[in-house]
Amino acid sequence: MRLRHKPWAKEKIENYPQYVIPNPAQYRGNWDALFKNNQPVHIEVGTGKGRFVTEMAKANPDINYIGIELQESVIVAALDRLIEAELPNVKLLNTNGEDLQEFFAKGDVERIYLNFSDPWPKNRHEKRRLTHDSFLRIYEEILIDNGEIHFKTDNRGLFEYSLVSFTNFGLRLKFVSLDLHKSDFEGNIMTEYEEKFSSKGHPIYRCEVKY
Amino acid sequence: MRLRHKPWAKEKIENYPQYVIPNPAQYRGNWDALFKNNQPVHIEVGTGKGRFVTEMAKANPDINYIGIELQESVIVAALDRLIEAELPNVKLLNTNGEDLQEFFAKGDVERIYLNFSDPWPKNRHEKRRLTHDSFLRIYEEILIDNGEIHFKTDNRGLFEYSLVSFTNFGLRLKFVSLDLHKSDFEGNIMTEYEEKFSSKGHPIYRCEVKY
Repeated sequence: MRLRHKPWAKEKIENYPQYVIPNPAQYRGNWDALFKNNQPVHIEVGTGKGRFVTEMAKANPDINYIGIELQESVIVAALDRLIEAELPNVKLLNTNGEDLQEFFAKGDVERIYLNFSDPWPKNRHEKRRLTHDSFLRIYEEILIDNGEIHFKTDNRGLFEYSLVSFTNFGLRLKFVSLDLHKSDFEGNIMTEYEEKFSSKGHPIYRCEVKY
Repeated sequence: MRLRHKPWAKEKIENYPQYVIPNPAQYRGNWDALFKNNQPVHIEVGTGKGRFVTEMAKANPDINYIGIELQESVIVAALDRLIEAELPNVKLLNTNGEDLQEFFAKGDVERIYLNFSDPWPKNRHEKRRLTHDSFLRIYEEILIDNGEIHFKTDNRGLFEYSLVSFTNFGLRLKFVSLDLHKSDFEGNIMTEYEEKFSSKGHPIYRCEVKY
């Protein structure tokens, strides 16, 4: 994603602590306290401009959503969506996917969404891919037993890599679509990127894997 | 594959017992005796007109190949190839994929190839797909430990189904390509069907899975 420097972003984020949670480590093992209910928590790692997580929260009021995005200049767009939508069941974390264990204890998360993650195509950057073995280990540390990853991407190389990575970690595929928009999968919520990309006619790959 | 009835096929097959092995059960646990060496055995289930298995045998003289095809009217085309190629390391079986255990003992086979298998798209025909759980069980009974299935198809639905089936059986993906002819995979030998189909520009899906 192209980033425009937004010097005011940090201040805006700080002005909305009810949406972008400051010090999320305080809720580790106790996210019920933040959401004031015991609904399952689904997180999106790399939430971008937040359309996916906001629309999912609208469509599924019985699930709590947390969108995680490191880039301040991007998460402010997601924040704008949350301010407008006024939903009780979606929050944002302005942090890194590598630090998940600081904010979530084992069992805090029922499902992880990875949408159009950076493919890091060079071999020497393999460890940065969000489906690398080291991330699968982190996810295991925060997911419930039998927790799931739902992953979609337009990047063929990343999807191929991820299928191999998932299954070598011992995860099982519950669902695979190799052309999501031509499949009979219902309820797909498109990310901003997905809408732009798929209008060119390229396939979107999607899978659900189970721990 | 469209089948033309060939009343002479049965007789022709019987005239070439050195290529289409009669009573293959006699070699169960002892295929070395047929090939007169102890090279690994790779089989193709549904070998069709035999181009793949013949070209593989040419390219890999240190592997013994067995092509398995039920349809007499199809296997005769493969037989013609073998007669012409005069290779010591490729044979045919005129039999069914369901009967593999009658002809192969545990460990007889190092690798199984499935190329452009019938997709059987209707749910009620799921059990006929060569990547159905029941076939994966049969393959397990004849493969060496850590034996492999190498599978390619143009049928998206069958490939999606198979990825789920493989991983739920506990198999791991070693390799996946979602567009084989645009990948950097080397040494691909095209089947007759593959050449015809891929010239239309549709992707070929391929994977290697490990027991």
